[in-house]
Amino acid sequence: MFKAKVKMEVLREVVEVISTLVSEVKLSVSKDGVDVKAVDPSHVAMLVLHVNRGAFEEFTGEATDIGLDIEKIKEVLRLSKPGDVLDLQYDGGKSKLVVTVGKLTRHMGVVDPAGITDPKVPNVNPPGTVKVNTEELRQGIRGSESVSDHVTLELTPEHFIMHSEGETDRVDLKIPKDALPELSAKETVKSMYPLDFFSNMVKSISTDEVVTLHVGNEYPLKIEFKIANGKGDGSFLLAPRVEED
Amino acid sequence: MFKAKVKMEVLREVVEVISTLVSEVKLSVSKDGVDVKAVDPSHVAMLVLHVNRGAFEEFTGEATDIGLDIEKIKEVLRLSKPGDVLDLQYDGGKSKLVVTVGKLTRHMGVVDPAGITDPKVPNVNPPGTVKVNTEELRQGIRGSESVSDHVTLELTPEHFIMHSEGETDRVDLKIPKDALPELSAKETVKSMYPLDFFSNMVKSISTDEVVTLHVGNEYPLKIEFKIANGKGDGSFLLAPRVEED
Amino acid sequence: MFKAKVKMEVLREVVEVISTLVSEVKLSVSKDGVDVKAVDPSHVAMLVLHVNRGAFEEFTGEATDIGLDIEKIKEVLRLSKPGDVLDLQYDGGKSKLVVTVGKLTRHMGVVDPAGITDPKVPNVNPPGTVKVNTEELRQGIRGSESVSDHVTLELTPEHFIMHSEGETDRVDLKIPKDALPELSAKETVKSMYPLDFFSNMVKSISTDEVVTLHVGNEYPLKIEFKIANGKGDGSFLLAPRVEED
Repeated sequence: MFKAKVKMEVLREVVEVISTLVSEVKLSVSKDGVDVKAVDPSHVAMLVLHVNRGAFEEFTGEATDIGLDIEKIKEVLRLSKPGDVLDLQYDGGKSKLVVTVGKLTRHMGVVDPAGITDPKVPNVNPPGTVKVNTEELRQGIRGSESVSDHVTLELTPEHFIMHSEGETDRVDLKIPKDALPELSAKETVKSMYPLDFFSNMVKSISTDEVVTLHVGNEYPLKIEFKIANGKGDGSFLLAPRVEED
Repeated sequence: MFKAKVKMEVLREVVEVISTLVSEVKLSVSKDGVDVKAVDPSHVAMLVLHVNRGAFEEFTGEATDIGLDIEKIKEVLRLSKPGDVLDLQYDGGKSKLVVTVGKLTRHMGVVDPAGITDPKVPNVNPPGTVKVNTEELRQGIRGSESVSDHVTLELTPEHFIMHSEGETDRVDLKIPKDALPELSAKETVKSMYPLDFFSNMVKSISTDEVVTLHVGNEYPLKIEFKIANGKGDGSFLLAPRVEED
Repeated sequence: MFKAKVKMEVLREVVEVISTLVSEVKLSVSKDGVDVKAVDPSHVAMLVLHVNRGAFEEFTGEATDIGLDIEKIKEVLRLSKPGDVLDLQYDGGKSKLVVTVGKLTRHMGVVDPAGITDPKVPNVNPPGTVKVNTEELRQGIRGSESVSDHVTLELTPEHFIMHSEGETDRVDLKIPKDALPELSAKETVKSMYPLDFFSNMVKSISTDEVVTLHVGNEYPLKIEFKIANGKGDGSFLLAPRVEED
C-alpha cells in the first residue's frame, strides 16, 4: 500500500502544472518520490516532473503507478483550504484512491495506467539560456495575446526579446542582459511558438519567481522551473512553429 | 396600514431562505411579526418561517397579507449597503408596497396573496436529531456535488454520516458524536434526499453557525435554524428519495 | 513628432469616458493638450473633452490628429498597473502609435482620422442646473434599471428628482435642495432620457465625486464633469426622449 500526506498548496501546484497538458496522468511512485511524464494530445508539448518525497508531510509504502483523473483531484482540492493536509492512500490495481481532507473522504476511481501515454522524452539541448522573472514574462504574454496566436522568443548576447506580430500591431518585450538574472547566448537564436501553450505553461508555474528558458533556432523550447518550495523540479518542452517564407 | 423598518441584513437573510423554494411568497403580518409558509412548485420541499416583530427596527399597523415578488425585493436589497435600514409601507389590497432605502423609493407592485399556495404543514417528527456545524455541512455538500445528485444522511448512536455515491466515486463526511454539538439517535436511521434542495437550503442559512437536522428512515428531513440574530426561526422540510432495490 | 508620458490612471479615465460613445476616436493634439469630440453611431449622444497638457507627465512635439482604436488602448492599459506611466510616441500619418509601458512596447496601428466623424457641437443651454453626488446618482440609476429603459430627470426650485416607471413598479430618487451641493431652477423642468446612455455616462465618470446636470423641458441633457485630477473637463450631451401622449 502507498500512503502519503501532502499540503494542499503543494498538491495544487503539481496539479496546475500537469493540467496544462493532460486530463489524465500516470503518477509513478517510487521510494524517491513521484515522477510524471506527460504529452499533450496533439504531441506539441511535453512535461517531465519530479517531486521529492521530502515535499510530502508523510510518504510511505511500495512503489506503484497511479492513473489519476486530474479533474477529480481538482474537485477535492476545492474542498480544502490553505494549510489543509490531504491524506492519500492507494492499495494498487483497481482499488480506489482514498483521499481524506478533514472529516471528508473521497473514494476516487482511478484510471488504468496502462492506458495513459508514456512518452519517450527527447534529448533537447537548446544553445541559448535565459532566466526571466515570471511576472515580466506574464505581462509580455498578455500583451502578445492581444495581437497574435504566436510568440517569438529571441536571445541575443545582450537581450532577451519576446515578440508577437499581428496584421496591424506588434508587441515587444525587450529586457537587457543587466536586468536579467542570467543570459547566456553566444549568438542570436530565435524560434516561434504557439502562444496558447506557452501562456498556459508559464501561468501554471504559480510559485517560482524566475523561470529558465532554453532557446534555439527553430528548435524546441525547454522551460525549467522549481516546484513544491524547491523540493521538486519540472521542465516543459514545446515544439517550435516553423515560420513559412 | 402596515409599516416597518428593517435592517438590510435581516431582510436579506429572510429573502435568501424564501428564495430557495419560491419566487412569490405570502407574508402573513400579525401583531407578533411575520409568518411565511411556502412549498416549492414540485411539492418536494417546504418552508415554515417566523420572524418576531423584535427583529424589526420598527413594526406597527394592522395585520395583513402581502404577496411578494422575491426578485423585486432582491433588486431593492442590491441598492442598499450593509447597515442600511429599509422602510416598508403597505396599505393593503392592490396598493403598492412602498420600499424606501435612503433617498430612493420603490413603489412595488404586489401579487394577489389569494393566488399563492398556502401549504398545509404536515406533522413531521423524525426520530433522530443532530446539530452540525454549518461550515462542515457545506464542505460535505460540495464534496457530494462532485459525484452525485443525491445525498444520504445517516445518524447512528455514535456518528453523523453524510454520503453520496456516483458510478466510480464515493464521498463521505463522517463526524463522531464527540465532535458534534448534539447527537441523539437510539438506533441507526438514514434517508436519501435530493442534493440540490439540501444544498440550497443549507447555503441559504447564511448566519446560523449550527443547524439542527432531524432524520428518520426513508422519512422527510426537517432542518431547523435560527434567523435574524435569533429573533426568528425557521424549518425546512424535504421529502426523502426512496431507494430503489 | 508627438511625444507624451501619462499616468495609467489618467489615460484610463479618458478612455473610459470616450468608450461610452465610440470605439474609434480622433485625438486632436495641440500645444494646449488634447481635445476630443465624439458622437455615438445613433447620434443620440455627444462628448466634448479637453485634457490640459498639465495632465501629462511629459508633453512635447507638434500638433497632430491621431485616430485611435479604443479597444487597443484598453488592451495596453490592462498590461499596466496603478502608478505606471505610459509613454506615447507618434510620427504622424500612417506610422504606428508606439506605446511603451515598462519593458513592453506596442506598435499600434492607427485609424485614418479623416474617416472619423467630427461632430458639430450644438449650442445647448438648459435652464436648470443641479450638482449631484455621483454615488447617489448611481444608486438611483441602478434602481431605475430594475423597472424601465428610460429615466426622467426633474428639477424643481426645491428638489432634484429622478424617476423611472415600469408596468407595475416605479422608482424615485428625490433629493431636497439642502442636501445638494447646488440646485438652480426658477421653475420646474423635466425631460425623459434613454437610461442606458445616461447610466453609461455617469458610470464612466469614475473619479469626479460630483457631476453637474443641466436640464430643460424636453430638451437635451448636458452633463459636466472634471477629469484627470481637475486638469481636464468634459461634457456629455444626450437627446431627450419625447414622451408620447
